[in-house]
Amino acid sequence: MQPLVGLIMGSKSDWPTMEHAAVMLDKLGVPYETRVVSAHRTPDLLFEYAKTAADRGLKVIVAGAGGAAHLPGMVASQTALPVLGVPVQSKALNGLDSLLSIAQMPGGIAVGTLAIGKAGATNAGLLAAQIIGTQDDEVRQAIEAFRADQTQTVLDNPDPAAD
Amino acid sequence: MQPLVGLIMGSKSDWPTMEHAAVMLDKLGVPYETRVVSAHRTPDLLFEYAKTAADRGLKVIVAGAGGAAHLPGMVASQTALPVLGVPVQSKALNGLDSLLSIAQMPGGIAVGTLAIGKAGATNAGLLAAQIIGTQDDEVRQAIEAFRADQTQTVLDNPDPAAD
Amino acid sequence: MQPLVGLIMGSKSDWPTMEHAAVMLDKLGVPYETRVVSAHRTPDLLFEYAKTAADRGLKVIVAGAGGAAHLPGMVASQTALPVLGVPVQSKALNGLDSLLSIAQMPGGIAVGTLAIGKAGATNAGLLAAQIIGTQDDEVRQAIEAFRADQTQTVLDNPDPAAD
Amino acid sequence: MQPLVGLIMGSKSDWPTMEHAAVMLDKLGVPYETRVVSAHRTPDLLFEYAKTAADRGLKVIVAGAGGAAHLPGMVASQTALPVLGVPVQSKALNGLDSLLSIAQMPGGIAVGTLAIGKAGATNAGLLAAQIIGTQDDEVRQAIEAFRADQTQTVLDNPDPAAD
Amino acid sequence: MQPLVGLIMGSKSDWPTMEHAAVMLDKLGVPYETRVVSAHRTPDLLFEYAKTAADRGLKVIVAGAGGAAHLPGMVASQTALPVLGVPVQSKALNGLDSLLSIAQMPGGIAVGTLAIGKAGATNAGLLAAQIIGTQDDEVRQAIEAFRADQTQTVLDNPDPAAD
Amino acid sequence: MQPLVGLIMGSKSDWPTMEHAAVMLDKLGVPYETRVVSAHRTPDLLFEYAKTAADRGLKVIVAGAGGAAHLPGMVASQTALPVLGVPVQSKALNGLDSLLSIAQMPGGIAVGTLAIGKAGATNAGLLAAQIIGTQDDEVRQAIEAFRADQTQTVLDNPDPAAD
Amino acid sequence: MQPLVGLIMGSKSDWPTMEHAAVMLDKLGVPYETRVVSAHRTPDLLFEYAKTAADRGLKVIVAGAGGAAHLPGMVASQTALPVLGVPVQSKALNGLDSLLSIAQMPGGIAVGTLAIGKAGATNAGLLAAQIIGTQDDEVRQAIEAFRADQTQTVLDNPDPAAD
Amino acid sequence: MQPLVGLIMGSKSDWPTMEHAAVMLDKLGVPYETRVVSAHRTPDLLFEYAKTAADRGLKVIVAGAGGAAHLPGMVASQTALPVLGVPVQSKALNGLDSLLSIAQMPGGIAVGTLAIGKAGATNAGLLAAQIIGTQDDEVRQAIEAFRADQTQTVLDNPDPAAD
Repeated sequence: MQPLVGLIMGSKSDWPTMEHAAVMLDKLGVPYETRVVSAHRTPDLLFEYAKTAADRGLKVIVAGAGGAAHLPGMVASQTALPVLGVPVQSKALNGLDSLLSIAQMPGGIAVGTLAIGKAGATNAGLLAAQIIGTQDDEVRQAIEAFRADQTQTVLDNPDPAAD
Repeated sequence: MQPLVGLIMGSKSDWPTMEHAAVMLDKLGVPYETRVVSAHRTPDLLFEYAKTAADRGLKVIVAGAGGAAHLPGMVASQTALPVLGVPVQSKALNGLDSLLSIAQMPGGIAVGTLAIGKAGATNAGLLAAQIIGTQDDEVRQAIEAFRADQTQTVLDNPDPAAD
Repeated sequence: MQPLVGLIMGSKSDWPTMEHAAVMLDKLGVPYETRVVSAHRTPDLLFEYAKTAADRGLKVIVAGAGGAAHLPGMVASQTALPVLGVPVQSKALNGLDSLLSIAQMPGGIAVGTLAIGKAGATNAGLLAAQIIGTQDDEVRQAIEAFRADQTQTVLDNPDPAAD
Repeated sequence: MQPLVGLIMGSKSDWPTMEHAAVMLDKLGVPYETRVVSAHRTPDLLFEYAKTAADRGLKVIVAGAGGAAHLPGMVASQTALPVLGVPVQSKALNGLDSLLSIAQMPGGIAVGTLAIGKAGATNAGLLAAQIIGTQDDEVRQAIEAFRADQTQTVLDNPDPAAD
Repeated sequence: MQPLVGLIMGSKSDWPTMEHAAVMLDKLGVPYETRVVSAHRTPDLLFEYAKTAADRGLKVIVAGAGGAAHLPGMVASQTALPVLGVPVQSKALNGLDSLLSIAQMPGGIAVGTLAIGKAGATNAGLLAAQIIGTQDDEVRQAIEAFRADQTQTVLDNPDPAAD
Repeated sequence: MQPLVGLIMGSKSDWPTMEHAAVMLDKLGVPYETRVVSAHRTPDLLFEYAKTAADRGLKVIVAGAGGAAHLPGMVASQTALPVLGVPVQSKALNGLDSLLSIAQMPGGIAVGTLAIGKAGATNAGLLAAQIIGTQDDEVRQAIEAFRADQTQTVLDNPDPAAD
Repeated sequence: MQPLVGLIMGSKSDWPTMEHAAVMLDKLGVPYETRVVSAHRTPDLLFEYAKTAADRGLKVIVAGAGGAAHLPGMVASQTALPVLGVPVQSKALNGLDSLLSIAQMPGGIAVGTLAIGKAGATNAGLLAAQIIGTQDDEVRQAIEAFRADQTQTVLDNPDPAAD
Repeated sequence: MQPLVGLIMGSKSDWPTMEHAAVMLDKLGVPYETRVVSAHRTPDLLFEYAKTAADRGLKVIVAGAGGAAHLPGMVASQTALPVLGVPVQSKALNGLDSLLSIAQMPGGIAVGTLAIGKAGATNAGLLAAQIIGTQDDEVRQAIEAFRADQTQTVLDNPDPAAD
C-alpha cells in the first residue's frame, strides 16, 4: 500500500525507540515507510527526502533524533507536510538536549514534538494516525477502538497491587 | 465559515501569546474559534468542549497553557482529533515547567508540542494549517506562499547590519 | 472500615512507588482504598472518582503520577477535599517533569506536592494521616509514636560506620 | 478568633508573596496568625513556635521561604500538624532552589509543597482551608462557593480577546 | 580583501550579539563577510553557502543562532572547514536551548561551541582568528598583542572599587 | 585525642559518601568525631550538638546530607564555628537538590559547600584540615605533603593510556 | 593592619557583588586586601598571588567569579590556605554555571562554595571571619554579636506586614 | 613525526573518553601527543605545557576534563593556539557541569567546546584535524574521505530495522 507516513531517524541506533511509532501505525492500519536519514551525515538525502515527500504521497513525516537533534526541524524546513519530532533519549543529558533541540523551533517552521523516548515514539505514531484520521474514517475508527481499548484495560484492572 | 481549528487557552492572560496562533491561521485562511477553557477551573467545560469538538466539525485543537499546563493533555484524552500544545512562558520557570507538562505525555495519548511562547503559538497555527492542508489544496497553497515569502524576505535582506 | 484516604495512581507501574504511602497509612491506622485512575486513559473515571470522593466519605486524596503528571491536579479540580500529589520518578528526566507538572499549579486549585519517588509516597501517606489527625486523636497519637520511634532509632544508632 | 492556621515566613521580604495566602484565608473565613520566623536567624524561635503550635490551637502551618528554604521542613520536624510549604521566588535561580529545598524532604517528615511564588501562596491558603474544611462545614462551603465563583468567572468570560 | 571568515547568523535579530564577533575580527585584522542565512527559512541558501565556502576562499565559518539552533551544525554537515557556533541568548530559556542544540552534535560532524551571547560571539571571532593565526604570522601577532593588552588592562586596574 | 572536627551526617546511608572525609582527616592527622545527626528526625539533638560544639573543643563542623539537605544550614544557624556542607548524591535528582539546598543559604548564615558526592566529602575533610592548618603547623605540613604527593603522582604517570 | 583575608575577583564588574564580602569583613573587624585577579586574563598574576598568599600573612582567600568561574579553583590549586568561592550571577544562566564551575571541584583541591550573588558574597566574608575566629577571640566575639544582632532584629520585627 | 595536536586531559580516568579523539586523529593522519595534565593537581605543569606548546610545534590543543573542568580554559589563557575542550561526563551531573565550566568562558579567552563524552572527543579530534586541514591538503583530503565514507555508510544502510 502507498505509504502515508514517512518514519525516519538519524541513526540505526534510534530504531529501538522509533519502532514504537511503527508498532502504533501497524496497529492503526496506517501504511508507512521507514528510512535512516541523517541530518548531519546525509544532508543531501535529507533535502531530497523532504522535498519529494509530498509528491511521493506522504501525508505526515515522523522524525526521531537525539542530542543536537536537527533532523525534524530540517525536514520541516523543506516540506509543507506536517512534521512530528521524537526526542530520542541521549546518553549524557537523558534527552533534555534532544527535546529542546526539537521543540524550540523559531516561528515560521513548525515541528510537533512528542515526549522523550518510547512514549514519544508511540505517540508520534498515534498523532500521525490522528492527522490521517481527520480525512480517513477507517483510521479514525481504529484510533477510537484503540483508545476505547486502553481505557477498558485500565477499568478492568482497578487494583494497582494485583499481579 | 465553519471553524476547523479550536484555539483554546487556560486563561485570558494567555491571549497575548496565543493570539499569534490566530494571526497565523488568519494569514493562511483557516477558520477557527477561540475560547478560554481552564482545565483546573472549568473541568466540565473542558470535557464537554473536547468531547463535542469532532462533531462540531473541528479538525484540530490548539491548546495553550502555562505552569502545570494540563489543558492540552486533558483535551487530548477526550477526543481523537489531533491536539497541539503551546507552552506559555511561566513567571518563575520561564516555561520549562509548561514545556515538560505538555510534552512528557505517557504513551497512548498524544500532544504535538510547540516551542515556548510566541514562536510556539505561531507554529501551532502553522502546524494546524499544515494538518488541514493535507486535505485542502487552498490551505496548502497558502502555506507554500507563506513559506516562500518568508524565505524571500531573508534572501532580500542578506546584510545583518543593515537598518 | 470506611476508607478515609483515596490512594490513586495513573498506572499499575506506579505501585512500587505508591505502595509506600499504603505502608505508612497502615502503620498509622488510617483506612484507605487504592485504585488505578488514569487522567489520560480514563478521564471519565477520574471525574467520577473525584466528584464522588467527599460523599463516599473520603477526607484526603493521594494521587501519584509520572511525566506529564496530570492526575493530582485534575482530581483537585473536581473536589474540595485536600489533594496530595506524588511525583513518580520518570525514565528520562528522573521525575523533574513529574515534580513540575504536579507542583506548578495555577492559583485557585491546590495540590500539596511531596518529594519525587518513594520518599514522597511515604510522606504523602504521613501527611494524609496528619490531616486526618487534626480531628482524630488516635491517628495523631499514632503519628507522634511513629515520629518518636524514628527519632529514637537515630539516637540509638549514633555511629554512622557501625554495621 | 482563635487562629487555626499559622502563616510564617523566613523574612519580611517574603510578605509580598505570602500575603496571597492571607488573602485567601480571609476570603474563606479561616482565622490565622502571621509571624516572621527565620530558620537560620531565629532557630530557637522556630523550635518554640513549632513545638507549641498544636497546643496553641493551630491546625495547619503554612511556611514560606526562598533559596535554601529550610523553614517548612524544620517546622515539620517539630510538630505533628500538617505543614505546607511555599517556595518563594529567589533572585538568581527563580525559585527552583526554593522548590527543591522544600519538596525533596526525606521519608518520615512531610511538607506539602505548593507552586513557586504568588500562585503557591494563594494555594497554600486554599489547601490549609481545605484541610480545615474536612471538619468545618462553614469553611468547606466557603471553599465550594469560591470554587464555583472562579469557575463562573471563566464561563462568563469565554472570549480570550475581549477587553 | 578576500574574506577568510564567513560570519553568518539565522536572523537579523542575532546581529546585536554577533557583531561582537565582527568587532573582534576587525581588531585582529582578519577579513570576513557577513550574511543572514537561516537554516529553517532558507535551507537551500544554507546548503549553497556551506558547500561553496571553501572554494570561495573561506577558512573558518562562524555561525550564530538561538533556540533550536540548527545553523552551525547544518553548515558543518556541508563543509570540511572548521565551524564555530555561537548560542544566541533565547527569550524563554536564556540560551540553554541554544547551547545544547549547538554543542551536543553527534560524533562525525563537529562544531566548536562558544559561550552563550556576547562573550561567545567575541570569542568566536577570537578563535576564528586563532585558527587563521596558525598559518598567518600577522594575525598571530595581533592576537598576542590583543592578549597582552587585555592582561595589562587588568594589571593596571588592580583595585576593584576604583572608579 | 580531642576531636577538632565534628563529622556528622543525616543518615547512616550517607556514610559511604562521608567516610571519604574521614579518610582525608585521618591522612592529614586531624582528630575528629563522627555521628549521625538528622535535622528532620532528631532536631533536638541537632540543636544540642551545634550549640555545644565550640565548648566541646571542635573547630570545624562537616555536615553531609542529601535531598532537602537542611543539616549543614541548621547546624550553621546554631554555632559560630565554620560549617562545611557536603551534598550527598540523591536518587532522583543526582544531588542537584542537595547542592542547591546547601549552597543557596541566605546572607547572614554561611555554609562552605563542597562538590556532590565522594569528591565533595574528600574535599570537606581537606578544607577542614586547611582551616585547622591556619593555626597548626603540623597539619599544614601534612596538607602540603599530601598536595605535593598528588602532584607527583600525576607527574609520574604522564601517559593516559598506560596501564 | 596586616590583611588576613585576600578578597579577589575576576573582573571589576564583580565588585558590586563582592563588596558585600568587604562590608561583612569590615563589620567583623577582619583586615583584608582587595584585588582584581583574572584567571583567564592574568594567569601569571593569579599564580604569583596564590603562591605568595600564605607568606604574605593571609589566612583565607575569598575569590568571586562568574560563568566558567575558574578563579577560586585555580587559586586553591596553588595554596594550602582555605579558599572560599563566590559564584557571581551570570547574564544568561543566572549563576548556575558559576555555581557548578566553582563547587564541582575534583577530590584533592577544595573550594568552600557560597550562594550565588550578594548573599554568597556576604557569607564568604562571614565564613572567612569564622575561620579567623577559630583562633582570634575578638573576631569570634564580633561574629557572635553580629549573629545575636540579626536574631534580635527578626525578633523585634515579628509582623511581616508591618511597614 | 612532529606532533601537531596536543591531546591532554585532567586525569587518567578521562582516557576512555579522550581516546576517541586519538582514534579520529589517527584515522585522519594527524600526528599528536598525549599527556595527563591536571589544572588542579599540576598547575605548574599546565602553565609550562601551555606556554611552550606553540614553540614545540603544536598547532591545536585538545583538552578534556570533567566536573569543574578548568583545564581547557586555563590552557587557553596561556597560549594563542586554538584550544578545543571536551566535557567529560561527570558522575553526579552527567557532564552538564563539565559543559558549562568549559563553554561559558568570558570574552577574551576562547575555548571551542564539543559535546559531552565520547561524541565530543571524537569531534574534538575531527575539528582539530579540520583546523590543520585549512593549511594541509593531505589532512583535508583525509577529512573529506572520512566524511564521504560516513555518508556512504548511512546511504548503504537505509533500513533502520535491518540486522
